[in-house]
Amino acid sequence: MTSPAGGGRRPTIRDVAAASGVSRGTVSRYINGGHWVSAESRTAIEAAIRATGFQANPHARALATGRSGAVGFLITEPQHLLFDDPVFALMLRGATAATAARDLQLVLLMASDEADRRRVVDYVTARHIDGVMLASTHRSDPMLGTLLRHEVPTVTLGVALGHEGRVSSVTADDRLGGREATRYLLSRGRRRVATITGPEGTPGGVLRHEGYHEALGESYDERLVVHGDYARASGRAGMAELLDRDPGVDAVFAHNDIMALGAIEELHDRGLTVPGDVAVVGFDDSGPGERSRPALTTMRQPYERLAFEMVRLLVAAIEGEPPSGVVMPATLVARESA
Amino acid sequence: MTSPAGGGRRPTIRDVAAASGVSRGTVSRYINGGHWVSAESRTAIEAAIRATGFQANPHARALATGRSGAVGFLITEPQHLLFDDPVFALMLRGATAATAARDLQLVLLMASDEADRRRVVDYVTARHIDGVMLASTHRSDPMLGTLLRHEVPTVTLGVALGHEGRVSSVTADDRLGGREATRYLLSRGRRRVATITGPEGTPGGVLRHEGYHEALGESYDERLVVHGDYARASGRAGMAELLDRDPGVDAVFAHNDIMALGAIEELHDRGLTVPGDVAVVGFDDSGPGERSRPALTTMRQPYERLAFEMVRLLVAAIEGEPPSGVVMPATLVARESA
Repeated sequence: MTSPAGGGRRPTIRDVAAASGVSRGTVSRYINGGHWVSAESRTAIEAAIRATGFQANPHARALATGRSGAVGFLITEPQHLLFDDPVFALMLRGATAATAARDLQLVLLMASDEADRRRVVDYVTARHIDGVMLASTHRSDPMLGTLLRHEVPTVTLGVALGHEGRVSSVTADDRLGGREATRYLLSRGRRRVATITGPEGTPGGVLRHEGYHEALGESYDERLVVHGDYARASGRAGMAELLDRDPGVDAVFAHNDIMALGAIEELHDRGLTVPGDVAVVGFDDSGPGERSRPALTTMRQPYERLAFEMVRLLVAAIEGEPPSGVVMPATLVARESA
Repeated sequence: MTSPAGGGRRPTIRDVAAASGVSRGTVSRYINGGHWVSAESRTAIEAAIRATGFQANPHARALATGRSGAVGFLITEPQHLLFDDPVFALMLRGATAATAARDLQLVLLMASDEADRRRVVDYVTARHIDGVMLASTHRSDPMLGTLLRHEVPTVTLGVALGHEGRVSSVTADDRLGGREATRYLLSRGRRRVATITGPEGTPGGVLRHEGYHEALGESYDERLVVHGDYARASGRAGMAELLDRDPGVDAVFAHNDIMALGAIEELHDRGLTVPGDVAVVGFDDSGPGERSRPALTTMRQPYERLAFEMVRLLVAAIEGEPPSGVVMPATLVARESA
């Protein structure tokens, strides 16, 4: 194979020391964080680095600092969901921008079974990445507990049910969002407001449902609640189940846009109009609802801000700061479906 | 934070040596590949590892072998294409299975600008990953040249134009596939067979077009060729351009399924029928063409086998073997559109 561009020898710390007139030990301390280096030496070293074209060996720097300069975006959902649900793409896009702004390498990791989890933990504890953003959490998923047991700096997207206070998290306000979506349907004169929830055991599934419950108060009726899994087919099946239970349903709050679109498909197939017969509100504003017919009324998550906060909290966790949580409101985007 | 499960001290090489009655040096050689360890010692060490519950420290192992046990899947396209074109998802799914089968950690990396490329090279040369699968190559993209200059073990998906013979590659036979798609349209009695190519400078864009050219021979007509970028909008715009140039076009070979679906959209909007007025063939069989109306006739790429071969060749490159190329046929899947 070829040698580095130009074929010349790569400048070393020795060259920088010679050109700056300070010791190699001082140059090394400068490169590894600048502790115990005088202002005078610093100026001389910086001039010598420019003159020689020296670049720190990232491997040596990693050994000195114990950091890789990389962070992971870890997905534990089945892989098809990564591509089917645009929420992941939106968060990944935000995380890409936020890590680039801090000159961190972003690596995407997937772990869906026990062997995957062991490999991820080995990879992190071997210090190939400095911390992990966990893109989704399910109460029964052992990944988060494993990361915490190995003291891996971690931030979760969504409140970490069962680990509250032990790990940093960023999230849209799922409970408030669920309440607002439901109240909006009530304010439009709807009387039989059903819901298709996210998976039980996930913060979205639990907290958006609590908000729905709060908004309805005493008129909450369990027969108007079905549980989905965020996939389109479950929205469609959920809508069918709700109509079979109660043909008088005149509104539905689906816990994500993809299920809302599945519900609309089922309504259309039954000859019902949206929003004429049944009003539909989604959650996420993840893209497909903008182009659908009717265009989807939904609760928008602030993806870009969530991603930037997620990276900020991860860097804080890597630096040893205690966990903290950031909650941002989801905002109603009123289109045609409700 | 918490200590490892159970709170007990983690077993070390010293514990394994004591329990097996062999020297620490021998245990260490066993763990780092097993060279110079007698069968007797090996048996004793394996029993001691089971008895003590010892797990090799992946960091120590990495220092000893110089390997991280991880490989990268590197995408240099704009990020939206990763999610818009299902080919990436299919290849990523295959690579996930193929790396898991070899107990390798797969990390997904994205690099679209100069700063991204520098970070990726730093990450690889710091030995956080052992090699790279480059998911797409464009003749003008400097990423591959950079990887080769830094002697990073690399395999490309698609022939590496301009670097042929210097890097391993796996690919469907783009030229043969282009020829077969075009011949199929001719065999159906079509007389004005147009094409919407992939990006110039990509192996798909160049080689599928060469196959198209070969199939038409002397009747090749440049006015029936437009260049796309693999995105849906370019398929639609390309079809419009072709019809404006020659309303007698009765067939089109689009270089991927996504552009073929864009072309069909344009044909329908103009009141033309598919395949009645214009027959359409795509390339990839990446999913959406199965569910479209009419269902898409296309050339299927063998994603799973491509991904397994890509991982096999990468492992060979990491072990220092010379580059080699694997080419597999694309196969015609005849549905309704042609």
